[in-house]
Amino acid sequence: MPPLIAVDWGTSSLRGARLDDVGRVLEEKSAPLGILNVPNGDFAGVFASLFSEWMKPAGSVCLISGMAGSRQGWVEAPYVACPAGPDELRQGLHWIEPGRIALVPGLSDEQRDVPDVMRGEEVQIFGAMRLAGLVDGLFVLPGTHSKWASVEGGRITGFRTFMTGEFYGLLSQHSILARTLEAEAPLDEAVFLRGVARAGNGEGLLHNAFGVRALALFGRLSPAESASYLSGLLIGEELHRQKLPAGREVIAIGAAALTARYALALGQRGLSVRTFGAEATWAGLRTLQA
Amino acid sequence: MPPLIAVDWGTSSLRGARLDDVGRVLEEKSAPLGILNVPNGDFAGVFASLFSEWMKPAGSVCLISGMAGSRQGWVEAPYVACPAGPDELRQGLHWIEPGRIALVPGLSDEQRDVPDVMRGEEVQIFGAMRLAGLVDGLFVLPGTHSKWASVEGGRITGFRTFMTGEFYGLLSQHSILARTLEAEAPLDEAVFLRGVARAGNGEGLLHNAFGVRALALFGRLSPAESASYLSGLLIGEELHRQKLPAGREVIAIGAAALTARYALALGQRGLSVRTFGAEATWAGLRTLQA
Repeated sequence: MPPLIAVDWGTSSLRGARLDDVGRVLEEKSAPLGILNVPNGDFAGVFASLFSEWMKPAGSVCLISGMAGSRQGWVEAPYVACPAGPDELRQGLHWIEPGRIALVPGLSDEQRDVPDVMRGEEVQIFGAMRLAGLVDGLFVLPGTHSKWASVEGGRITGFRTFMTGEFYGLLSQHSILARTLEAEAPLDEAVFLRGVARAGNGEGLLHNAFGVRALALFGRLSPAESASYLSGLLIGEELHRQKLPAGREVIAIGAAALTARYALALGQRGLSVRTFGAEATWAGLRTLQA
Repeated sequence: MPPLIAVDWGTSSLRGARLDDVGRVLEEKSAPLGILNVPNGDFAGVFASLFSEWMKPAGSVCLISGMAGSRQGWVEAPYVACPAGPDELRQGLHWIEPGRIALVPGLSDEQRDVPDVMRGEEVQIFGAMRLAGLVDGLFVLPGTHSKWASVEGGRITGFRTFMTGEFYGLLSQHSILARTLEAEAPLDEAVFLRGVARAGNGEGLLHNAFGVRALALFGRLSPAESASYLSGLLIGEELHRQKLPAGREVIAIGAAALTARYALALGQRGLSVRTFGAEATWAGLRTLQA
């Protein structure tokens, strides 16, 4: 297998890894050069400045996942419709330099009234499957736009997006709740779980979010507690929409601080959670190379 | 009855009306001097500059409802707990000048786990009751923070707040949806009602909101349509949380453009809606004077 340069090029930042011929990470780098921050839209220039050295060995291949393949990215690599596995993604690779540099397409789920899309998460899912030795499972990728995906027989059969992280940012920084909320406060687990539980009351997010304000007015939530409570409300609202039979294992992929919150909330409901981080991306791109 | 100066002093603006001895509006004025825009916190100065002329007739009384009575306002007029009617509000008036200028307290609902609060809407509800000749009913006051209140025997027995308008502003201006949404587009009623219907799908707002983005990516919602659809999703989410037996009448109080949207969505479900505007505030303050 030729050396692989694996790149996750997102909206606000970019990470790359140089893998050896058996997929071990030799070196990593990252830069704040997400697709919205590429000077003059010169994607080729940014790519060369960061990776030309790594691409020198003969036969080097670079696979790039994430928003670089979106309409606002380097070149649009059209979505592949799910159900889809690594084979379909591989067939959908958009080669910038044939055999050398390719953009991984995103996935669409067009099986319901309203479509859904992901870009980058599909690679993380295939990577986690490889690392965990799984061909079936339920996956969550928490973040700005959390994804919940079902995998059967090695293929993603369907998925849904939840704007959980973005709502947290909007509410904690730009809404009336921001006045009495310390967004960067460390997690208070008990208060977080109170928020998770409250999300299940059937009153809906529009009402429950105002409760953060009312509890603060009555001195029943401190600014630091409000942050944990709001996080619990939002993650609880997201979890509340999933079919989660007790005892089911959930694979969570993402930043450790975030997957830990999901593990806490899911653990409360008797579900076990296995977590993966950046290694899932590298393993997923490796899978696509094979 | 002495002449009444009725003032609704809110967060971003202020409106006042001079009423004659039978409650007819003789004159109105408004200013962009909401409690957050009062220079140096000089509430007395702003009040005098706007209303000293109106207050000249002997025996003039001014009642002020809204956020002027909040902790960030002129003086805090503590919440009166519901169930409460005009009598309880009258007893809770906070006199700035005894017998002359008073702040109307807000209402709290502390009958559930998490409290709820309103300031100003209670006066509009009592005003609409007076204008409609009702002592029982279900009231909605759409806005930044929509209120749903139940009235029995002339008293507000309980209420809930929904951050519908604020969520619309956050999502349409500050979220990823803003990129493909024309927030000020005129209402497309059919698209609005599609959003209302979609809110009832059990998938939750965090998921349904992302659908606006996905539909735009697939060219199935124009920027103008996205605004109507998102408005429908949010108002639908709010309505979905109410107990609304078919045939029930709902009293909607607020800006005509907004109450019209609620009437449209509620009409679709076989509910009749009666609407009131600013006149409800003046009638409500008049009720408190009596």
